[in-house]
Amino acid sequence: MSKTFDKLQPYLDKTMALQTARTLFEWDDETAAPYEAANNTSKVIGILSNEYRNSLINDEVRKLLKKLQEEKEQAALSEKEKAIIKELGRNYEQLESIPAEEYRAFSELASKSCRTWARAKKGNKYEDFAPILKEIIGYKKKFAGYRAKNGKKPYEVLLSDFEESFGIKELDIFFEKVKKELIPLLKEVGSKADTIDKSYNYLNYDIDKQKEFCKFLSGYLGFDFNRGVIAESAHPFTTQLHNHDVRITDRYIEDNLESAMFSIIHETGHAIYEMSIDDSLTQTLVGGGTSMGMHESQSRFFENNIGRSKEFWEPLYDKLVAAYPVQLKEISLEHFIKGINKAAPSLIRTEADELSYPLHILIRYEIEKMIFNDEVTVDDLPNVWNKKYQEYMGITPPDNTSGILQDTHWSMGEFGYFPSYAIGSAVAAQIYHHMLEVMPLKDYLKDGNLTPIREYLKDTVHKYGATKNTNQILKDMTGEEFNADYYINYLKEKYELLYEI
Amino acid sequence: MSKTFDKLQPYLDKTMALQTARTLFEWDDETAAPYEAANNTSKVIGILSNEYRNSLINDEVRKLLKKLQEEKEQAALSEKEKAIIKELGRNYEQLESIPAEEYRAFSELASKSCRTWARAKKGNKYEDFAPILKEIIGYKKKFAGYRAKNGKKPYEVLLSDFEESFGIKELDIFFEKVKKELIPLLKEVGSKADTIDKSYNYLNYDIDKQKEFCKFLSGYLGFDFNRGVIAESAHPFTTQLHNHDVRITDRYIEDNLESAMFSIIHETGHAIYEMSIDDSLTQTLVGGGTSMGMHESQSRFFENNIGRSKEFWEPLYDKLVAAYPVQLKEISLEHFIKGINKAAPSLIRTEADELSYPLHILIRYEIEKMIFNDEVTVDDLPNVWNKKYQEYMGITPPDNTSGILQDTHWSMGEFGYFPSYAIGSAVAAQIYHHMLEVMPLKDYLKDGNLTPIREYLKDTVHKYGATKNTNQILKDMTGEEFNADYYINYLKEKYELLYEI
Repeated sequence: MSKTFDKLQPYLDKTMALQTARTLFEWDDETAAPYEAANNTSKVIGILSNEYRNSLINDEVRKLLKKLQEEKEQAALSEKEKAIIKELGRNYEQLESIPAEEYRAFSELASKSCRTWARAKKGNKYEDFAPILKEIIGYKKKFAGYRAKNGKKPYEVLLSDFEESFGIKELDIFFEKVKKELIPLLKEVGSKADTIDKSYNYLNYDIDKQKEFCKFLSGYLGFDFNRGVIAESAHPFTTQLHNHDVRITDRYIEDNLESAMFSIIHETGHAIYEMSIDDSLTQTLVGGGTSMGMHESQSRFFENNIGRSKEFWEPLYDKLVAAYPVQLKEISLEHFIKGINKAAPSLIRTEADELSYPLHILIRYEIEKMIFNDEVTVDDLPNVWNKKYQEYMGITPPDNTSGILQDTHWSMGEFGYFPSYAIGSAVAAQIYHHMLEVMPLKDYLKDGNLTPIREYLKDTVHKYGATKNTNQILKDMTGEEFNADYYINYLKEKYELLYEI
Repeated sequence: MSKTFDKLQPYLDKTMALQTARTLFEWDDETAAPYEAANNTSKVIGILSNEYRNSLINDEVRKLLKKLQEEKEQAALSEKEKAIIKELGRNYEQLESIPAEEYRAFSELASKSCRTWARAKKGNKYEDFAPILKEIIGYKKKFAGYRAKNGKKPYEVLLSDFEESFGIKELDIFFEKVKKELIPLLKEVGSKADTIDKSYNYLNYDIDKQKEFCKFLSGYLGFDFNRGVIAESAHPFTTQLHNHDVRITDRYIEDNLESAMFSIIHETGHAIYEMSIDDSLTQTLVGGGTSMGMHESQSRFFENNIGRSKEFWEPLYDKLVAAYPVQLKEISLEHFIKGINKAAPSLIRTEADELSYPLHILIRYEIEKMIFNDEVTVDDLPNVWNKKYQEYMGITPPDNTSGILQDTHWSMGEFGYFPSYAIGSAVAAQIYHHMLEVMPLKDYLKDGNLTPIREYLKDTVHKYGATKNTNQILKDMTGEEFNADYYINYLKEKYELLYEI
């Protein structure tokens, strides 16, 4: 028992409460709030955000944190408390380094920028977005500069906000492998894409039935409806107030069977992670998933490694056919499995298949590095973007809407975020490889018995929340830190088999 | 411009933001949150409530408030600022008079009590609820005692929280009239209830079609879907984050056509009030409807005075029949109007018709007075309740579930709230009488032209928010303060005509 930690507790509680309120406002904005609410509501959110900052950045917390970081005090802390202090230290360093006024100015800019971006994307007008993007990048460089100690590069600082286990060095190695192995594979696969028929996917699929089937799928995977809800939003996402209130959304498209189904599997992967975090950790600074990469590994594991396997669909496919007897009458399970794994070079990240996906991320990673190394101007970004798509994918975006303007991340200042998507897929492949070794995974899937899979992930990954980082989790689980080879091998094996290469 | 008021502004803003967050959590709890979320979420709400209290009850606000209440400072304030200071003074006096620990203990008790009440109601076990009700009443007496100055009775203090224009004296006069005039009228009407057929109402009405028609009705009345949303909850209610985010809920019952329809008309009345409050007032302490009674007058005006009139349904009834051609084939508009106005003594307040409703409130008012005058014990409440129902309605509840346990209000400590429901109906009748004189109201209804009605209410009632109280609004609008005779006359005329008395 640390008396110093006890003194800190009320501040941590207040931070948690204000953060939960902000999360609820965000959820509400995406799923319920009326169209014209935003202006007045943003005033509320601004005040709550300011309160949030003040609950952390103040003399008392600074004093307590410094003390708790000392060796003597550390000795009196539990593992959980140590993890909380470490996380607090990180948050503190991030927030404190930026002067309050600059932080507020940036927050306002980012919120404005988000709307400017949306309009620019809709109208295919990169030139309307470029000026504000310049400002955003200016702020991010400045902020990263405040925090870049010991010769650390600004981009390194930004990356560390999303995934502490992976810096530029690790990512360079990872993306080199992606580049070397997956570009030629995708090219070959792309040339054979026509051998797989997927026209069935674009027939008319009643939306109420889609909703019903997606809800069933989510529960089948283990989503606990007593501790979570499913709603609709423009883009599927997962959020949580705590481990007993985890929320996912989906989007239903009438002439696309796959879209909502694989989104719900993906989001359910995120949700199961959050629902399985230990009760003793939830509502603390280490009460969420440990990193963006690790989170994405769980959603991708369910979506791709499991969700696109034949074994997974064996006990399920008849039910899907029963929901759509006319549309799927002629489509065998084998046909369906090939369909959901069809791959080819593509322009849009969020619609990309499992194989072309990491190349979308590779392009963004290379461009983000260039931006923060001052190797490209904002005005030249569309050219760089299009050239890389031509070089790696063999296709050039016909316009900026389906090119550089497609993602919202940069408009909110989220640089360094994209790599964690690819890291997530690679971590998922490593976990998948490991689980095939330690349990009859495919038999479980065939039997429709997801419980042992979920339980194993809970015991090795989920329950720890953010008390262990990605590499610690992987090491303790598989005996090995992150190794991208599993990912490359998984994709090669899978696609060579599917396309008989 | 008052510099003192400017200093107060940040505190007011913080209070508003925290109050808005609490409102959102309440809305979310009723409409979206998963079943098991409550325990963890209540921790968040507890912290935010505490922050809310601290944002008001502190030395700086106390000092500024005192100064702003002085004559000299008042002279420098705008009307809006004066109203805010008055409202702040009221809130301050309420909150400050109760020691923080007692307030917290009571809040926890009330939240626990609410669940105890729900279980007791379900199981018809008043004895399970009685002990906690005793505690609740104990707290309320104590709290009222802290605030009862100048020989004011505790119940008077509680009443003033909901409606400053109406104390015991005014309510005694009002309820005497209700008693004298409406008990015999209801008795006579009840004896003729069988002359009106309403069996059509209890056929099977598809819920999706109900939802669609209710949404149409709400928009027809003037609900602005860009500034509001409709959701579902166990009990219909209205809430708002500000005047650009007003939310109503409804409940749909398959074998009851009326229930959802008149609930949505009622809630739309509340919503139109909130949506029409001036932009300059929203998000301030005077940015909501002025009182419970005035709010209820607006919902009742739309629900009863307008919504149950023949003129209102003339342009609408064909559309309703078209939605349910089988069920309503034989039912003429005249038949339907008689059906929706059928009245008889009843046991359940929330299901009561327009005529028996005030008698339900009369009973509660008399019992609440007895409680706070120490004229009845908690254990004896069911007896008193049942006797009054027998005396005024001519029927005795068969069990406590449909008797004393039916309402949630007392379990949350909301004593003094019920009278505002009846006051609301009476104010509505007074406004209705006035509007018939100043505009061709019935012609507007026949023409389906609700705009002039809504605009008039906006200009005379809504836009002022809480800057004028109920009596001021009535005086400025009708030339007369509250006068219950309009209500009594309205009901007598209406029901004598309907039942050919």
